[in-house]
Amino acid sequence: MKAGKVLVAQGGGPTAVINQSLVGAVLEARKFALVERVYGALHGVKGIVNEDFLDLTQETTHNLERVAATPGSALGSTREKPDEAYCAEILKVLIAHNIRCFFYIGGNDSSDTLRIVQEFAQKQQYKLITIHIPKTIDNDLMVNDHTPGYPSAARFVINAFAGLNLDNRALPGIYVGVVMGRHAGFLTAASALGRKCRDDGPHLIYLPERVFELGQFLADVKRVYDRHGRCVIAVSEGIHDAAGLPILTSMAQQQAGQPERDAHGNIQLSGTGALADLLTDRIKQQLGIKRVRGDTFGYVQRSFLGVVSDVDQREAREVGEKACQFALWHGNSGSVTIHRVGNYSVEYRLDPLVAVAGKTKVMPSEFISSSGTDVTDAFQLYLQPLLGSRMPETFRLRAPIVPKILKK
Amino acid sequence: MKAGKVLVAQGGGPTAVINQSLVGAVLEARKFALVERVYGALHGVKGIVNEDFLDLTQETTHNLERVAATPGSALGSTREKPDEAYCAEILKVLIAHNIRCFFYIGGNDSSDTLRIVQEFAQKQQYKLITIHIPKTIDNDLMVNDHTPGYPSAARFVINAFAGLNLDNRALPGIYVGVVMGRHAGFLTAASALGRKCRDDGPHLIYLPERVFELGQFLADVKRVYDRHGRCVIAVSEGIHDAAGLPILTSMAQQQAGQPERDAHGNIQLSGTGALADLLTDRIKQQLGIKRVRGDTFGYVQRSFLGVVSDVDQREAREVGEKACQFALWHGNSGSVTIHRVGNYSVEYRLDPLVAVAGKTKVMPSEFISSSGTDVTDAFQLYLQPLLGSRMPETFRLRAPIVPKILKK
Repeated sequence: MKAGKVLVAQGGGPTAVINQSLVGAVLEARKFALVERVYGALHGVKGIVNEDFLDLTQETTHNLERVAATPGSALGSTREKPDEAYCAEILKVLIAHNIRCFFYIGGNDSSDTLRIVQEFAQKQQYKLITIHIPKTIDNDLMVNDHTPGYPSAARFVINAFAGLNLDNRALPGIYVGVVMGRHAGFLTAASALGRKCRDDGPHLIYLPERVFELGQFLADVKRVYDRHGRCVIAVSEGIHDAAGLPILTSMAQQQAGQPERDAHGNIQLSGTGALADLLTDRIKQQLGIKRVRGDTFGYVQRSFLGVVSDVDQREAREVGEKACQFALWHGNSGSVTIHRVGNYSVEYRLDPLVAVAGKTKVMPSEFISSSGTDVTDAFQLYLQPLLGSRMPETFRLRAPIVPKILKK
Repeated sequence: MKAGKVLVAQGGGPTAVINQSLVGAVLEARKFALVERVYGALHGVKGIVNEDFLDLTQETTHNLERVAATPGSALGSTREKPDEAYCAEILKVLIAHNIRCFFYIGGNDSSDTLRIVQEFAQKQQYKLITIHIPKTIDNDLMVNDHTPGYPSAARFVINAFAGLNLDNRALPGIYVGVVMGRHAGFLTAASALGRKCRDDGPHLIYLPERVFELGQFLADVKRVYDRHGRCVIAVSEGIHDAAGLPILTSMAQQQAGQPERDAHGNIQLSGTGALADLLTDRIKQQLGIKRVRGDTFGYVQRSFLGVVSDVDQREAREVGEKACQFALWHGNSGSVTIHRVGNYSVEYRLDPLVAVAGKTKVMPSEFISSSGTDVTDAFQLYLQPLLGSRMPETFRLRAPIVPKILKK
């Protein structure tokens, strides 16, 4: 890297460990004499074009460590997806501040932004290193075995379903839990790891990797309910029909009520309970089951305080630190990627931005059961080591049944 | 107590610590020679009339300890509210099995059932001890300083809002979180304890103890949004208009769509995202704010695995143990109640069932701010010691702002 400043920014949805990556990059960058200052951009690319920077060189190590353990994006984030003109603005600001290294922590959109900025810098012969640091609870980045943020969100979903299964067992009925994940079902699939006994839920898991068919869904639910007297269902918010249309849209079109649309006219998936409500309504109407409940986990699954995988924390810290090492020892741009090299052990590599940028990884078929409503052992073996230590466990009474006297 | 069997049952909504009370009563009862057997009824009163009993004398201490630490109702629960004929059936079964002591862990409905069964037993001159062991996440039992189950649910709500506040700070907008509590706002009010800095949310808290007025709500939201550029709102599912009608009903009546009703024609408050969706729709429509999200916490707040207050665990265990001691050393029936006698220390007493049965405690005015949309210091001092140890904390960056170059 050419002598100058390092800039770190955070983009997209916050996670439980995204600040680990921030702090990993900042603490490592502060060790190099070549680095004049380490800046943090407020609210991602928006903060760059507005020159809203914090001087993270003047932040205590102690507080950085505390921030690292705090969920959310400490610098603030943004949903803005820069076009070429926007990227040109970004480069203008980087040049004005003599920023020679730009780390962007985010998903595949953030990676694509870096790709464009890097191209512009090369055209203008401005020496700039751009490194994408992976994060997303969706676990949908190409090349990576998994992405920081996913294991902690998975841990939340597992603890939620393990508890909801107990609740449903105590007060039997149908329970539908809607989990985040527009295109990739990894987070919804995690719900399976909350099971311990054979009859534990979730009994059915619906992923965006498979076509959702309402008739089949109702038949599945009826089968489980007839067998167990109850049914716990994990549904991805991204389930869609054969035409690829989200179920929320296709079902809403079929009924009188107005569908929930956001300001842009798009069906909003997160931050609304509409999908759970639609599915529970259909179950009540068509299966005639009384106790049917639905919850949409919503934002709490990516932000909840205190539920975090220590493996995820460690890896999120390391991708930040590695980004800095790739930049400062090797002068390379790219995307830091995670590769599993043992059970359980990982290695970090630097891949070209184009390998990750703007692409989406979904669950491979070997992770989905042939029924399409469960996961395979391969998936469970994949996820288990990511969850970290001290996973809570559930226990049941095993006392013998007492013979009846009056009703024998 | 007359020589015979002890029966324990669990009623109403499960909590994170209701099995502590079960195990507290069972382990203590197993010490007494007078106690022939300790039975557990499956699914509360329903299991009693069906004679569905487990012999908990034949359960290992080790597994009981594990079950105690597991959320949910290990014996199963029920929503059935026995009438007099039902209570007569219960007594018939108790007599047939020579059950001389009946512990029912539950809320104010469970306490009322015991009251009726006790009256019938006295009429028939059958010597029976009935003790109500308190539990409810709503914290709405009379006489008690607080109820087992509430502190752990409060801890969930606090950790949820502390995280959601960070998420909303990273991606600013309006966030509405709907919390359980039909009549009492204690659980919703707990959200306030997730705040650390002055501008942390929840910025507005709506409780069923105050009349909800949509116009005032929108004005409140606008005021906070204009000031902070964001707004986090905690809403109790039980908010109602001046006539006492739930907001979900009164708002649904005003608009074309059909209101969500359960099988009995009642508006269903839990297990549906309808209230959050209605409120966020109004904010979008009438304040013209783009990023508005709403979640309904739902069943996860009472069942989530691994978020528990150790103070709550200890007290839930003790009320079970004390119930057994009141019954076996003193032969008294009643309701075990919790009284605060120090900061922080409690005492357990046995009060008459009628003092608790069928009544609901709501938040006293001294716990609600004069604005009606926040809690007082008195409430924070009340709740703090119940939350237990190792509450996670949030930290922010405090680095200085960098002077602008291009936009100065």
